[in-house]
Amino acid sequence: MKITELRLHKLFSNVEVSASTQAQTTASDVNKAEEGRMNILGGHLTAPSVTTRVRPPITTHILDVARGCPAAGIEVQLEMYNAKQPVPVFGDLDQDKWILQGSSTTDKDGRSGQLMKIVNDLSPGVYRISFNTGKYNPDGFFPFVSIVFKVKESQKMEHFHVPLLLSPFSFSTYRGS
Amino acid sequence: MKITELRLHKLFSNVEVSASTQAQTTASDVNKAEEGRMNILGGHLTAPSVTTRVRPPITTHILDVARGCPAAGIEVQLEMYNAKQPVPVFGDLDQDKWILQGSSTTDKDGRSGQLMKIVNDLSPGVYRISFNTGKYNPDGFFPFVSIVFKVKESQKMEHFHVPLLLSPFSFSTYRGS
Amino acid sequence: MKITELRLHKLFSNVEVSASTQAQTTASDVNKAEEGRMNILGGHLTAPSVTTRVRPPITTHILDVARGCPAAGIEVQLEMYNAKQPVPVFGDLDQDKWILQGSSTTDKDGRSGQLMKIVNDLSPGVYRISFNTGKYNPDGFFPFVSIVFKVKESQKMEHFHVPLLLSPFSFSTYRGS
Amino acid sequence: MKITELRLHKLFSNVEVSASTQAQTTASDVNKAEEGRMNILGGHLTAPSVTTRVRPPITTHILDVARGCPAAGIEVQLEMYNAKQPVPVFGDLDQDKWILQGSSTTDKDGRSGQLMKIVNDLSPGVYRISFNTGKYNPDGFFPFVSIVFKVKESQKMEHFHVPLLLSPFSFSTYRGS
Repeated sequence: MKITELRLHKLFSNVEVSASTQAQTTASDVNKAEEGRMNILGGHLTAPSVTTRVRPPITTHILDVARGCPAAGIEVQLEMYNAKQPVPVFGDLDQDKWILQGSSTTDKDGRSGQLMKIVNDLSPGVYRISFNTGKYNPDGFFPFVSIVFKVKESQKMEHFHVPLLLSPFSFSTYRGS
Repeated sequence: MKITELRLHKLFSNVEVSASTQAQTTASDVNKAEEGRMNILGGHLTAPSVTTRVRPPITTHILDVARGCPAAGIEVQLEMYNAKQPVPVFGDLDQDKWILQGSSTTDKDGRSGQLMKIVNDLSPGVYRISFNTGKYNPDGFFPFVSIVFKVKESQKMEHFHVPLLLSPFSFSTYRGS
Repeated sequence: MKITELRLHKLFSNVEVSASTQAQTTASDVNKAEEGRMNILGGHLTAPSVTTRVRPPITTHILDVARGCPAAGIEVQLEMYNAKQPVPVFGDLDQDKWILQGSSTTDKDGRSGQLMKIVNDLSPGVYRISFNTGKYNPDGFFPFVSIVFKVKESQKMEHFHVPLLLSPFSFSTYRGS
Repeated sequence: MKITELRLHKLFSNVEVSASTQAQTTASDVNKAEEGRMNILGGHLTAPSVTTRVRPPITTHILDVARGCPAAGIEVQLEMYNAKQPVPVFGDLDQDKWILQGSSTTDKDGRSGQLMKIVNDLSPGVYRISFNTGKYNPDGFFPFVSIVFKVKESQKMEHFHVPLLLSPFSFSTYRGS
């Protein structure tokens, strides 16, 4: 296991513990039982792959670049596009086609809780991660921020870190690491 | 009339001419007749306000910061949120509630054509400007980019320039000038 | 002359007028006489090139993305690297090797005054544009910002717009248009 | 010790080991003996503060946002301003006044090696971190990137993470966490 994974193992093994209290997650109840089973199985499985995940495949982090600190207390939600066509047609953002994966609120380090299950194979497709920036910066320009990104079939074992650099009148995002 | 307005008058008086050909705009037909009348009236009206607009209240511009040039040929659309509640509830992005204002494609300078009427009083509310980035960068991370921003009642005479700085794996936006 | 140039002609023909008052420029006196002669000649010359410049080859613009407005009153200076080797060696930033081209302060639109002569052929080489951000944001992270960029021999007829997107704890720059 | 520190302990305890081989660091020899002594002492000291550092007070990370991956193999150097005046005068960037703290090259995760000693009290003052971006992107706009930032007296126990988001024609930086 490479050093980054070791480091993150430490990070998320703690997160898992706190996740059991369900204090901050408000994920949809769909598949909740299955999720619990997955987590338990996760502990028993000794997958032959060297890339067994120790954190969810999609994570985020918000920095407040106007104040120079992590942005705490921002609601975050992760959705996946689920329709017949593999990629949403531009301009057709019908809510019915987005399936909530999980939601959370950023902690004092600007990190969200777990937004999806810790699965080894991330389902390829189009995801949307959204941030309730209007509640955080009531006088800012952006009532909320939604970032749509795609995961290709060939990338399902990769990690996707999608951070937000936020100030009241600008934001940036990128595929992080 | 201040220098910026003069400069932009030059810019958009040309755009208006080309707009009459309707080559690149595919705005919804709603209010089209009224729009034509507005434009004609616009030429005759000698509004008492010193801030008579010579360009639409909302504009954009896309730069390709990976290639170091304007991003040409990107589809852009502008919508306005139109529901009973003044601001969309976080997570409720039902397509039915967004009303298309206009659409266009960026030219060789990375500028979109006219996305809305040249009105003096911009309707306050929540707008969404979207860019078909997936078509432009097929191997990039973002199938499309949507930016949601709000215009307050007190800001209806202001100009809103919302540019996009785009590379295949990152983007930034901000309230420009 | 294309529309952008026309627009900018309007912009900078006004700037030239105000430049004669020397209100805001504090450029080095080196070549000042020559600069005046150039400007006069500029008006008379009917260069055969369609790309006769109507603004300096290098310009900037500062937006305050924390406040959502242009950043006014920020000192800006432009230097060119002038040593035997064509490109500065990394880590060797000896001040003696940078030659001041001009300096100014941003106006209420966040634009600097003229930082160099309006010449058709920009000298290829390495330039440095610096911003006194510490004076503007005394509690911010950056005492000043310096951006080093290069102009290739093949690019000497191009325009270089190098904007700054500033907030107290972040900044971005890019080759603009 | 909070979770982030634990995680970073893991990270940098490994880095320390590899640092002993001196493979990638080319720090100035000044104070090298003292540095070794400091590191040894660091292991013995049981500072009363709960914030005993387990990584250097200043770190960086480079992401290539055009390619969507960490930027590996970029030379990085950290300097500190050392002159009679506490803050460099704008425009006076005399090389003699900048003291090299350490240098390194980014690894495959885009992280630099150790750029300075792991000291608890970071000396307040003005620092400059520079990146040899021209070698990494030979056709890009920036021969190198230098970021100047200040550490106040009241911040000497804080951590300063100063990342670079890089594409050939743009870069961003911010105070990270």
